[in-house]
Amino acid sequence: MNGEQAYIRWLRQRWVAHPRVLVGPGDDAAVLTWPSDRSVVVTTDMLMEGTCFVLAQAGARRVGRKALAVNLSDLAAMAARPVACVVSVALPQVGGRAVAEELYLGMEELSKAFDIPIVGGDTNSWSGPLVIAVTALGECGPRGPVRRRGAQAGDWLLLTGPLGGSLLGHHLTFTPRVREALTLVDLVRVHAMIDISDGLSTDLAHLCQESDCGACVEAALLPIRPEAEQFDDGRSPLEHALHDGEDFELLFAVSPEDGASLLADQPLQPLGVHLYRIGSCRSEKTLTLILPDGRSQPLVPRGYEHRLD
Amino acid sequence: MNGEQAYIRWLRQRWVAHPRVLVGPGDDAAVLTWPSDRSVVVTTDMLMEGTCFVLAQAGARRVGRKALAVNLSDLAAMAARPVACVVSVALPQVGGRAVAEELYLGMEELSKAFDIPIVGGDTNSWSGPLVIAVTALGECGPRGPVRRRGAQAGDWLLLTGPLGGSLLGHHLTFTPRVREALTLVDLVRVHAMIDISDGLSTDLAHLCQESDCGACVEAALLPIRPEAEQFDDGRSPLEHALHDGEDFELLFAVSPEDGASLLADQPLQPLGVHLYRIGSCRSEKTLTLILPDGRSQPLVPRGYEHRLD
Repeated sequence: MNGEQAYIRWLRQRWVAHPRVLVGPGDDAAVLTWPSDRSVVVTTDMLMEGTCFVLAQAGARRVGRKALAVNLSDLAAMAARPVACVVSVALPQVGGRAVAEELYLGMEELSKAFDIPIVGGDTNSWSGPLVIAVTALGECGPRGPVRRRGAQAGDWLLLTGPLGGSLLGHHLTFTPRVREALTLVDLVRVHAMIDISDGLSTDLAHLCQESDCGACVEAALLPIRPEAEQFDDGRSPLEHALHDGEDFELLFAVSPEDGASLLADQPLQPLGVHLYRIGSCRSEKTLTLILPDGRSQPLVPRGYEHRLD
Repeated sequence: MNGEQAYIRWLRQRWVAHPRVLVGPGDDAAVLTWPSDRSVVVTTDMLMEGTCFVLAQAGARRVGRKALAVNLSDLAAMAARPVACVVSVALPQVGGRAVAEELYLGMEELSKAFDIPIVGGDTNSWSGPLVIAVTALGECGPRGPVRRRGAQAGDWLLLTGPLGGSLLGHHLTFTPRVREALTLVDLVRVHAMIDISDGLSTDLAHLCQESDCGACVEAALLPIRPEAEQFDDGRSPLEHALHDGEDFELLFAVSPEDGASLLADQPLQPLGVHLYRIGSCRSEKTLTLILPDGRSQPLVPRGYEHRLD
């Protein structure tokens, strides 16, 4: 028989015991130990075929990898350490077993790299497109969580990498900034943080709204991915960097002193990550873009938003 | 604007502070406090339109309710106390906002009844059918978790209610047996437990497989829902009770002494729940059905299994 139970047997054969996991796959729920001084951080993200990826182009393995990676990026944005995850899938009935295995192998790659065991899930098949939903659990010690709120007027806005054009490939292969976030909160007090998923303009608006402040972004300082120049759609590389989204870099606010020291020391260089200052927070609750020629204009959030009529 | 962000504002307006929730909806992740002597129990379930429900018949509110209820049933099967949940949805673009609100209101009903705040989620829209995935977190104290493994030859098999015909309506309105499970583990040592989601024959096979034992079920003892008699499909009410699934009653194994005392005392009567003995575990690793006339036959797992070719 080649159904759900055979797949679950395959999964359980791959299962490796983990010190935090009291009950792994194959029961009604998974059970984890939890250290006494740690809070539980929980986040979930769903990817749908045709909307978030094109299965024939991406391949199921990279889709599985991405499904876990976007959740790890959310944990990173809270400066949480990954602990465990669960995954629900709606698979195609024909060819579903092969898709399921590829999804799992893609997740497994990141699961090992970030020590976040896949402790359970729900495996379904249907006649619709592929859907995968991952929920990740993390833990915060005394230095976390870092929230979207907390940025103050005068804070510097720093970014962990260049933006724009991610849909040409980066969104399927990016490394979530988990280690970077944990390193940063060990070094400085991060006032507020968010990961760039919907686009810098939209995510900066979220951070400022929660922090009850505004911000200005200096276009000349903004690092832009080379891929942002590969479009012929009438939008400039700058516009792609501001609004594309799916970059999964961290945007965070620190005091100017801490910001200057981070820029000078570049403590994430051993991880291959360069820190950029892209602007500042201000008390006036608007978003402003300072163009390379010195003119300024409102920065309108134009990142991705799901339509709901 | 009537998109994702407007819906999230609507959600956050409904948010009520909860002592266990340090960070609720509206950040990159939610954050919960966790008592020092409790393990973390985590389970996830996905429901897809057309496969798990017919939206036009069920209505989005009952779909939302069910999406949380099936997760609560899994927590119950571990004898875990509900703590918090997150929800991911893929909504239709047209009419999606109304569906989203109805889903939420259906979840909210159980969320309040079982004190399991909805602390976060991911709201998407697409051109496909409605998909909702809930992940529930619970906690176990020193008496938990109760696993599928642990049943012993000679144990009595008890059930919290009648089976069969759930798809005529019960699957959308059932009360997850959370309080029942917590009451039971306070009174006796429950050796193994599972909730009946795929069908008694299949779920009993799971429990026996994990416990490395077999079982016999006495048809004459099996409580059957009146709805199981309302089919004209050539299958008997007994067959519907054995294989239909989606009953979400608890099946559990206890010593004969504890079983006899539970049957005599009926400690779940204040919750409106009657306990039934339906058979016993045995060392021979097969499943047997004893018919009302005394003949016995193999009990073949014929419950629901997702097809994966």
